[in-house]
Amino acid sequence: MYEGAVQDLIDELGRLPGVGPKSAQRIAFHLLAADTSDVRRLADALTEVKARVQFCETCGNVAESATCRICADPRRSPATICVVEEAKDVVAVERTREYRGKYHVLGGAINPIENVGPDDLRMSQLMTRLADGVVEEIIIATDPNVEGEATATYLSRLLAPMGLRVTRLASGLPVGGDLEYADEVTLGRAFEGRRLVGG
Amino acid sequence: MYEGAVQDLIDELGRLPGVGPKSAQRIAFHLLAADTSDVRRLADALTEVKARVQFCETCGNVAESATCRICADPRRSPATICVVEEAKDVVAVERTREYRGKYHVLGGAINPIENVGPDDLRMSQLMTRLADGVVEEIIIATDPNVEGEATATYLSRLLAPMGLRVTRLASGLPVGGDLEYADEVTLGRAFEGRRLVGG
Repeated sequence: MYEGAVQDLIDELGRLPGVGPKSAQRIAFHLLAADTSDVRRLADALTEVKARVQFCETCGNVAESATCRICADPRRSPATICVVEEAKDVVAVERTREYRGKYHVLGGAINPIENVGPDDLRMSQLMTRLADGVVEEIIIATDPNVEGEATATYLSRLLAPMGLRVTRLASGLPVGGDLEYADEVTLGRAFEGRRLVGG
Repeated sequence: MYEGAVQDLIDELGRLPGVGPKSAQRIAFHLLAADTSDVRRLADALTEVKARVQFCETCGNVAESATCRICADPRRSPATICVVEEAKDVVAVERTREYRGKYHVLGGAINPIENVGPDDLRMSQLMTRLADGVVEEIIIATDPNVEGEATATYLSRLLAPMGLRVTRLASGLPVGGDLEYADEVTLGRAFEGRRLVGG
């Protein structure tokens, strides 16, 4: 539809997640009108990220060397491992500033439809990390959806014989939300997990 | 929040129109997991578009040489010029396969809030194109919003003394739409522009 280079860019942008053909076109025309230096910065950032970023050998988080910042940090307690699906979940947990232990990134969740089984996730690497007996608690922080729950259940059974404390993040009403708009599953979980207040 | 290269990429992606921080993060992690060759293709497309794409000296459309494909095409009638705001509007009109004339891309619309006046648009270049007396009709196809209407009005006054046929695209109900959901301005325009049916 467009001349060569513009259409090529629209095609490449359209392959990104969440970018439809209309957005791809809007972004391409924005870049056409932008300063060459801005476009070069984006192109360089793309090249850099593939050249420099790797995955931590210990926990699977993104890293710029063989070990990520968190695994390398001596102030983080090695007695607790928080298991998450993706590296971006590490950032979400870090944002709470509540957690001072280590992480383990599975690289996804069990999903029979997409043919992802336990062997496709970094579960054996987690078992290896438990060998030295330093770890006392595993916090399973997979997503609160079907795949995340399946993964949590599988993992907790796998961990059961190890004699560790295995916990799962609480489900319930989102803070600042409105009870009226909560879906029935979340509301059901909020009832199940209800806590005694006061006296 | 993330280590250097990942955060740099998220920042650069977040500067694109319609890409919020969450989308930028999702795209960045998608690219981290993607094949290096896919990411290189995107980076190359960005570099290429700035290196090769320019704007047609005649009409202002995107081009890969001094003259765009449409201006260079001898089968396109030089007697009609369709005036649009942006190069992407050229593609929208081309998609209808109804129009066989030439184009003129203004590069925007009159917008006092963003300080865009007639002098910031390619209006004098349009006047220059009319000098040889070949053009018979100017079709004003600016957007059907306040800025587009202002631009159309300004342009039609500018063109009035030239003795050309000056037309504006019809406003009315979108085909396949539902009268019930039409906004009152569109519906009002549809009434104004009503046509006699049959005998």
